[in-house]
Amino acid sequence: MLKNKLLFESPDLPYSSGVIHNVIQIKKKLYSGRSPFQRIEVFDTAAFGRVLVLDGIFQTSEKDEFIYHEMIGHPPMFYCPLPKRALVIGGGDGGVLKEVLKHPIEKVWQVEIDAKVMGVSRKYLPSISQGAFESEKAEVIIGDGFKFIKERKFKAENFDVIILDLSDPWGPAKKLISLDFYQAIKNVLAKDGVLAVQSGSLDIQPALVSLINKRLKRVFSFVKIHRANVPLYGVGNFSITIASDQNLEKINYARLKKKFNSLSLKTRYYSPAMHQSSGILPKYLKELIE
Amino acid sequence: MLKNKLLFESPDLPYSSGVIHNVIQIKKKLYSGRSPFQRIEVFDTAAFGRVLVLDGIFQTSEKDEFIYHEMIGHPPMFYCPLPKRALVIGGGDGGVLKEVLKHPIEKVWQVEIDAKVMGVSRKYLPSISQGAFESEKAEVIIGDGFKFIKERKFKAENFDVIILDLSDPWGPAKKLISLDFYQAIKNVLAKDGVLAVQSGSLDIQPALVSLINKRLKRVFSFVKIHRANVPLYGVGNFSITIASDQNLEKINYARLKKKFNSLSLKTRYYSPAMHQSSGILPKYLKELIE
Repeated sequence: MLKNKLLFESPDLPYSSGVIHNVIQIKKKLYSGRSPFQRIEVFDTAAFGRVLVLDGIFQTSEKDEFIYHEMIGHPPMFYCPLPKRALVIGGGDGGVLKEVLKHPIEKVWQVEIDAKVMGVSRKYLPSISQGAFESEKAEVIIGDGFKFIKERKFKAENFDVIILDLSDPWGPAKKLISLDFYQAIKNVLAKDGVLAVQSGSLDIQPALVSLINKRLKRVFSFVKIHRANVPLYGVGNFSITIASDQNLEKINYARLKKKFNSLSLKTRYYSPAMHQSSGILPKYLKELIE
Repeated sequence: MLKNKLLFESPDLPYSSGVIHNVIQIKKKLYSGRSPFQRIEVFDTAAFGRVLVLDGIFQTSEKDEFIYHEMIGHPPMFYCPLPKRALVIGGGDGGVLKEVLKHPIEKVWQVEIDAKVMGVSRKYLPSISQGAFESEKAEVIIGDGFKFIKERKFKAENFDVIILDLSDPWGPAKKLISLDFYQAIKNVLAKDGVLAVQSGSLDIQPALVSLINKRLKRVFSFVKIHRANVPLYGVGNFSITIASDQNLEKINYARLKKKFNSLSLKTRYYSPAMHQSSGILPKYLKELIE
């Protein structure tokens, strides 16, 4: 069994300490190509089924995509009392779109810079989007999320929820963790709107989590980190950071539970109890970030 | 930097799917030897400081030992209203003993089968026990935990808390996950006593977690799984299973918080809020185990 084993090791990355690697056994390479923005690969693996890899970094897998997508999708949708209009930046695999569309929302815009990521995901990983791109409520725009936000003029119809489902900020997503971008987001977010940001691993990228946290705090009144355990991403705690001008700590969990049940939301990781408990951090991680 | 990298890869193990490996860079081998029970090694690593390895499996590290030891030590001590007498089986590194001794307890017995693990830990990893073995309240017995429990005749002075800090059940700890052993434990546990068991990784050893869970349920009225994120143990969620004949769900967290504060307990991971939130499992893990 070991004889035919092909190991795929993620390369040393700028944010990595270079000492911990998640090694995943590859069964087959299904796709490998380049877009103007990044290298795109799809592998079949024993542990995670098909996985999407961008510039050598694991993005999502068939087997555990629901964990990350539920935990970046549902908390902002439930923090927001009555979300009608949502915007997803990035998220080319369609997983977040699928989760947001489980809510009784009016419309979701999605701005993805890399059409090829979307095409490859639709072809090789259809179970992640499950037809979400075809929803009548979804409007998909191929373009630069930064520009889209900056150029949006009319405040009359702002977004209730904005989700930044971005790859790590070394590739095309670099300027999407800037203070400038967060300020522009605030301008297109409704007064009680909620922003959710993929903010990296608390264990292996604490400096990144901390940077995003501090920048968001300069723009929004309330910033809260939620944890999720995504096996594909390796060690420990992955973070989703929520930012808003409404007090996130004032959420009523009994009411949230009632709403969750009344919507008959099908989830496998997210629940009102997980919503609440995922927002509690151990002291040593709080100290690492502050 | 990569040139001189020495990789230590944990071997394929009976419980492992053989597809995910946690690769940790070794700086130096500090000790390697054999006891009658197992191979013992201590390495210095960049990510975790010194790590203890038994039969090729990472046991604990200087850098993150507090996570596991706090989460196996404090929950049973707080579930129990007034713990006076505790027993630790295994735990040769002294980390659990150290945590239990932070409470106003009368006495802690520790039964460790492998004197060499204890000696090596004291010499190479003194920061884990921090002199706990020398405490006047501690009585260390080198011997077989199974026999110790089985041969204990007098019920008059049973234990309020018992902690099984064991290595995975393929080496010397094999019979310590048997139904027979759990029943014997119940016989030496006080009526409202609480048992805490190292029960493996929810993500890569769900069958083991499930087995321990089911066996404990045959013996105790209430069984509850707590999660902890221990970076050394690799992917995701590590489990500590708590068993008791007192209803664990009836714990009063406001009172626990008061008690925790009044004891001025120094912890870096455990807190009353973490106690509560660590007992909440995502649905997909509950389903995996049941």
